[in-house]
Amino acid sequence: MHDDGRERPVHRPGPVTRTRVRQVSGSAVRDRRDDLATEEPLEIRLLAGGESRTVAITMRTPGADFELAAGFLYGEGVIGPGDIAAIGYCTDEDLEPEERYNTVTVRLNLPTLPDIATLERHFLTSSACGVCGTATLKALRDRCPTPASSAPGFAVAPQVLYGLPHLLRKAQSGFGRTGGLHAAGLFTPDGSPAGVREDVGRHNAVDKLVGAALLGGRLPLDRHVLLVSGRASYEIMQKAVTAGVQIVCAVSAPSSLAVDVAREFGVTLVGFLREERFNVYSGAERITTGDGA
Amino acid sequence: MHDDGRERPVHRPGPVTRTRVRQVSGSAVRDRRDDLATEEPLEIRLLAGGESRTVAITMRTPGADFELAAGFLYGEGVIGPGDIAAIGYCTDEDLEPEERYNTVTVRLNLPTLPDIATLERHFLTSSACGVCGTATLKALRDRCPTPASSAPGFAVAPQVLYGLPHLLRKAQSGFGRTGGLHAAGLFTPDGSPAGVREDVGRHNAVDKLVGAALLGGRLPLDRHVLLVSGRASYEIMQKAVTAGVQIVCAVSAPSSLAVDVAREFGVTLVGFLREERFNVYSGAERITTGDGA
Repeated sequence: MHDDGRERPVHRPGPVTRTRVRQVSGSAVRDRRDDLATEEPLEIRLLAGGESRTVAITMRTPGADFELAAGFLYGEGVIGPGDIAAIGYCTDEDLEPEERYNTVTVRLNLPTLPDIATLERHFLTSSACGVCGTATLKALRDRCPTPASSAPGFAVAPQVLYGLPHLLRKAQSGFGRTGGLHAAGLFTPDGSPAGVREDVGRHNAVDKLVGAALLGGRLPLDRHVLLVSGRASYEIMQKAVTAGVQIVCAVSAPSSLAVDVAREFGVTLVGFLREERFNVYSGAERITTGDGA
Repeated sequence: MHDDGRERPVHRPGPVTRTRVRQVSGSAVRDRRDDLATEEPLEIRLLAGGESRTVAITMRTPGADFELAAGFLYGEGVIGPGDIAAIGYCTDEDLEPEERYNTVTVRLNLPTLPDIATLERHFLTSSACGVCGTATLKALRDRCPTPASSAPGFAVAPQVLYGLPHLLRKAQSGFGRTGGLHAAGLFTPDGSPAGVREDVGRHNAVDKLVGAALLGGRLPLDRHVLLVSGRASYEIMQKAVTAGVQIVCAVSAPSSLAVDVAREFGVTLVGFLREERFNVYSGAERITTGDGA
């Protein structure tokens, strides 16, 4: 990367943005260059049967936009595994150059645009029956009737889990430079990395992983462990369940609803995975604590 | 709090949920009780001129729901300072008991329901002109034409900032128990706490603070420092700008778009505020580094 301070023409936004910063430490002050995690909006458009519709605008870190779009649409129940015909940036003439890489068009193998009621329910809809954790679980259950299959013999050893945060951090190219990127990683049961994605939004990092698996024909992810660098919320668990993940680990705390989803769908949920320790909130049978350290 | 293990009837959800957990440490395993940060959906309904409309369903930690609803609506540009006539839980007979405290109805002093185009633009709309960071800033500028006024003489010393994370953590009642709650705090220029709110969502914690100020007639917050326990994203900065905050501090990294907003609106943005160190990304003139430590 060049560092001569000259302005350059607008290109595709990258995952890291350079800036100048004043660093204050004790009574010392100095101005220096620094790297920021890039945050830019991404518009996701669906195209089917000659119709087009914007279904989401999400803030994200550029770099795996097709994966993000695919994973988001799949995780929200808008599309199924075989529905994508093509994904491309929207390079309309009427878009400013800096906007062209912030709009992704997903062309579907479908005669008409799919129902995006699940998305709308997520955001702005009138629900006659009220909302609560139980109703949220029921809605997810309606969408994902099959619980994560309990593949026989699939379990991991604590020693494997202990090693995952270090592997995730090692694979995070952007975090070391910016300190501002969440990460999500997939690992095999013996602890081998099988994909890591970063984003300013932790849910986006999971969408990118799931989208990569979807586009690569590798769903469901029922033989993988998912590790997220932050907390486990409802949204993370919803995406994990939809992708068929059976073991979810978080470096930080899970929320109450994340634990509820894990128990409802038979997913193993591990939290506070740090320095040879963790808590198991659900599905302890997939952790081989019996044979000790 | 009782701890006899008996089931109790459903009441209002609280900020902390008890659970059982298997703790694995090295080769030791033990089962114990643990506390989780509660995550439940909150439905926000507007009521005006005899009409009612659900404008958002957001995951949140129960406990300051009226403040959250007010702050969310204000921060998203849906309502102005004097628009709220009353806020209450929706206690319709047709709601299940556990749903009654997850729906908040905001009655407005307005003849008709306000335009929620800003909200829809946020989520699900078709934008002819594409999206990018610059367009996002422009949209925010259209909504917040007045930059944070530069109240004369308003500046803080590094020594004051160094002390804020400790004060924030001390005021976080739920974090110590669950490890799963973000916090946002307001402080006076001399470092006195003026309000702290917690939530599983960091943007919700800011909404609760802004909502409390709105309902208490204390907006704009142009004589306060806002500290968030995590990262500073576009969303956090948007809420800060709308509330008139002039100094925003984050314990972790800011994103590129957060820095862009700060510079565009003349807000001081401090990041990585930890252990007698911080970075200033914008508005360094409000930090009195001149007079040393």
